[in-house]
Amino acid sequence: MQRLLTSVKRVLQVKKAMQEASLSPASLLPGAHQRFSTVPAVPLAKTDTWPENVGILALEVYFPAQYVDQTDLEKYNNVEAGRYTVGLGQTHMGFCSVQEDINSLCLTVVQQLMERTQLPWDSVGRLEVGTETIIDKSKAVKTVLMELFQDSGNTDIEGIDTTNACYGGTASLFNAANWVESSSWDGRYAMVVCGDIAVYPIGNARPTGGAGAVAMLVGPKAPLALERAGIDRPFTLDDLQFMIFHTPFCKMVQKSLARLMFNDFLSASSNTKTSLYKGLEDFRGLKLEDTYTNKDLDKALQKASLDMFNKKTKASLYLSTHNGNTYTSSLYGCLASLLSQHSAQALAGSRIGAFSYGSGLAASFFSFRVSQDASPGSPLEKLVSSVSDLPKRLASRKRMSPEEFTEIMDQREQFYHKVNFSPPGDISSLFPGTWYLEQVDELHRRKYARRPV
Amino acid sequence: MQRLLTSVKRVLQVKKAMQEASLSPASLLPGAHQRFSTVPAVPLAKTDTWPENVGILALEVYFPAQYVDQTDLEKYNNVEAGRYTVGLGQTHMGFCSVQEDINSLCLTVVQQLMERTQLPWDSVGRLEVGTETIIDKSKAVKTVLMELFQDSGNTDIEGIDTTNACYGGTASLFNAANWVESSSWDGRYAMVVCGDIAVYPIGNARPTGGAGAVAMLVGPKAPLALERAGIDRPFTLDDLQFMIFHTPFCKMVQKSLARLMFNDFLSASSNTKTSLYKGLEDFRGLKLEDTYTNKDLDKALQKASLDMFNKKTKASLYLSTHNGNTYTSSLYGCLASLLSQHSAQALAGSRIGAFSYGSGLAASFFSFRVSQDASPGSPLEKLVSSVSDLPKRLASRKRMSPEEFTEIMDQREQFYHKVNFSPPGDISSLFPGTWYLEQVDELHRRKYARRPV
Repeated sequence: MQRLLTSVKRVLQVKKAMQEASLSPASLLPGAHQRFSTVPAVPLAKTDTWPENVGILALEVYFPAQYVDQTDLEKYNNVEAGRYTVGLGQTHMGFCSVQEDINSLCLTVVQQLMERTQLPWDSVGRLEVGTETIIDKSKAVKTVLMELFQDSGNTDIEGIDTTNACYGGTASLFNAANWVESSSWDGRYAMVVCGDIAVYPIGNARPTGGAGAVAMLVGPKAPLALERAGIDRPFTLDDLQFMIFHTPFCKMVQKSLARLMFNDFLSASSNTKTSLYKGLEDFRGLKLEDTYTNKDLDKALQKASLDMFNKKTKASLYLSTHNGNTYTSSLYGCLASLLSQHSAQALAGSRIGAFSYGSGLAASFFSFRVSQDASPGSPLEKLVSSVSDLPKRLASRKRMSPEEFTEIMDQREQFYHKVNFSPPGDISSLFPGTWYLEQVDELHRRKYARRPV
Repeated sequence: MQRLLTSVKRVLQVKKAMQEASLSPASLLPGAHQRFSTVPAVPLAKTDTWPENVGILALEVYFPAQYVDQTDLEKYNNVEAGRYTVGLGQTHMGFCSVQEDINSLCLTVVQQLMERTQLPWDSVGRLEVGTETIIDKSKAVKTVLMELFQDSGNTDIEGIDTTNACYGGTASLFNAANWVESSSWDGRYAMVVCGDIAVYPIGNARPTGGAGAVAMLVGPKAPLALERAGIDRPFTLDDLQFMIFHTPFCKMVQKSLARLMFNDFLSASSNTKTSLYKGLEDFRGLKLEDTYTNKDLDKALQKASLDMFNKKTKASLYLSTHNGNTYTSSLYGCLASLLSQHSAQALAGSRIGAFSYGSGLAASFFSFRVSQDASPGSPLEKLVSSVSDLPKRLASRKRMSPEEFTEIMDQREQFYHKVNFSPPGDISSLFPGTWYLEQVDELHRRKYARRPV
């Protein structure tokens, strides 16, 4: 005996569980009720319109408990001082030992989000993972995460993995929002997970590595609502109080903001007399192709856009500066950083522009609208305070020498295709509550365990 | 100068193009208009409810132009006659030469769908690929397909790839339908592509290979509408006029239908006197675990369910029987087969049950509602007639000997990681209009060309 789609009984159980949960946006409960009181009714009633303000309700960031200092790496690699710290804008780089892989990173960040929000495990109806750190060409990381939901009996969770370079996190977020807005939404939360382990060979690219993961809870009445309808005129940076970018390395982001400003300058009428674009007038006539390599323009743009960078973007680079590139989760680490560096009051009502892209390529320029309500206990205030410990958590990591870092990278390479082994390493070097790879058997099956909280 | 999301101007161009196109469901045009006349309006107007009957509007199947006969393979492998043809239920197996890969398969099936429907290339607003045939761990097949859209100037297409074993096609279909039903829908079609190349090592599993791809056009007012709301009682096979399954091999599907019937039998009250369940009464008391391996039950179930199998499922196995397993596209090949073996009249108004699963695992049991209108020129009639040539196309393939097949499989293995080469082989052995791999350069970049139609 089966039922087509979800049974009414099951949904009522979830509804009850969600009422008991600490994080239960008022909107979700009537929504779920409304959806399921109409289960037998096809077509759907007129009241079944899109839920309001679908977006990010809660967010969790995970990064490894160890890092290498980029000034140490400059010396170790015999390059001039400042090449990584100023040239790339990177001060520290997080990295994983053999004990961690993409599955363990995602297990950790999902469990931490569930524990922080105190949601019951059966309140999640969709789970999708965006990653380009592929261990298994066929099996999704999402199916590994299902182990976390096992004890709750919640096997009814839509979604699998999605992949295109660094764009996977954004694709997952959009898919999650679409699900909540579709007739197949069952009133439960969607969870979006993104994460990657970025390792480059010895050489110029190595200091642009990093590792980490982000989990996001998606639903209606979100303090960070995805803006789905456009505006009916060309937009400029004036429309965005904050602007975040996918961050391969921080200097590239500063240049990206400068480029947006240059575009604004070019599209503004030439008699616009504003101090904003001071020093750019000489470059108005350049051919587009020439603007990409003109060093003078580069300098002028960085100077002209510095204030705007400091105001709209710099705070979002806190995690990237200290931890490096995390591919699919990079943009969402920027979002967390932005929230961690401002008060709820400063963020309330603002629009956050976001530019996500992945080689290949796929790209989206989109925006979040921050809710107006920043009062104590509001969803926004809760979200902001949940990430306020980011700097403290980053500061608590262990500094490793470039020699130790290099040895561990070699170890990762050596163990990459190995079977029948237990990764060497000290569990106590992981943050409390971190999942880690315990064993890989002869059939490549991976077994995970968790360091106690 | 950028615009947030799609500009109004662009959408009006698309609208015009769609009006000129041969396949332009009446519903889509007002829908698009409605959406875009409200672009500046946030929140959305009450009239922006879900579009009706979102599902499959058109469908295209691609399979290789060569196959090996399973009776030949039985002899070649020195196994008893009938082991593959009866034991597995497989009569022929399609396979690819070195000239084809997952990208070329998907290029071919997308171009064929666009040419058959005569849609302009800018009428597609979402494109997602579900596959587990991974050439590049990071770059999506979807980004390769974007080359087809290049001349039209349509670079604004959402979606990337999604992966979990054989489930990726279904995940893509659900994501496409959610997009059409969400506030981010821009009034254009979604396209879902799934495909795989299934190759097993020499031995028992090898005859369960196959290769192929399916492309589907998704939008409102579809002749095959996805049923999104459940029914408020347990369902039985009586609720489904047809039942299709993911098909690793055909015999497994016959056993799957038999199992569904057994479940119906067990859930029916024990005093239900129906000839349907004749011969099953002896097995009512078996423990669930024991039912999986009981050979007598197996025989009794196959006998009891034979009529139902012939009526509801057998027609859907036409492609699988003659071409083998195609992983993510297997279920949608079954759907195409079902349509090719029935008249529009016979299908009209029916419900098609569908069971999709992928190892790992992820699974969905869902259903399509076939539209009532089967009149000449109706969307249903057009869809059905578009796949009616499936048997003829399969019959036109070239039969290769097991020796040739084995040699080509060895060649595929040998060329798998090779760079700087042009695949050997005769282009004329491909169907007209087939895309093929022309060259792999030293940086693993793949170049494709198309055999003229």
